[in-house]
Amino acid sequence: MSDQPVRPVQPFEPPYYAVVFSSLRTDSDDGYDETGDRMDELVASVPGFLGMDSARTPGGLGITVGYFRDVDAIAQWRSDAEHRTAQKRGRAEWYERYVVHVAKVERSYGFERA
Amino acid sequence: MSDQPVRPVQPFEPPYYAVVFSSLRTDSDDGYDETGDRMDELVASVPGFLGMDSARTPGGLGITVGYFRDVDAIAQWRSDAEHRTAQKRGRAEWYERYVVHVAKVERSYGFERA
Repeated sequence: MSDQPVRPVQPFEPPYYAVVFSSLRTDSDDGYDETGDRMDELVASVPGFLGMDSARTPGGLGITVGYFRDVDAIAQWRSDAEHRTAQKRGRAEWYERYVVHVAKVERSYGFERA
Repeated sequence: MSDQPVRPVQPFEPPYYAVVFSSLRTDSDDGYDETGDRMDELVASVPGFLGMDSARTPGGLGITVGYFRDVDAIAQWRSDAEHRTAQKRGRAEWYERYVVHVAKVERSYGFERA
């Protein structure tokens, strides 16, 4: 999460899935960046993982959207042991509140300045 | 876009739609905040609009996710005349690149610190 891509991922060929994770952080930073970097590495190794966009307004909302080919890929990521440990720590320390929306992408398109 | 909510919107009752707008801005700020505020007002008046989350990493990626009850609500927002004018100006002035993903939410859940 600390290494922001400088551009959004490309639109993939539908159907695929988007997992929207919107969060408000606590003041606790202990281990957060390190764990985020490790999660970035881990999710990239999940078969069917397509890419990820992430943004956070300083002092405000953070949104990470992970893109996956199908629900099996999401299930695999969700049940990953190291990820589950990180989720628990997130609820205990790093997040004041979060909401997850799991959605099937029907249409996507992009614009790029000439 | 300039008035950030301090917490993410709640998980709505599926099915509903999420429109993910991920963007990289140009250096041009002329009229951007004013137009963003106006679009926030306008979209809130669309029947079937449920809510919106928005975040932007300074100098990096911005992500706005709009939630709508159905595709008709998205179509109405997409074809709004004032919104279309803003979109054109966005491509001409404010955005280096953007990607839109239109997705049907199948499942959502949230966490809130006790």
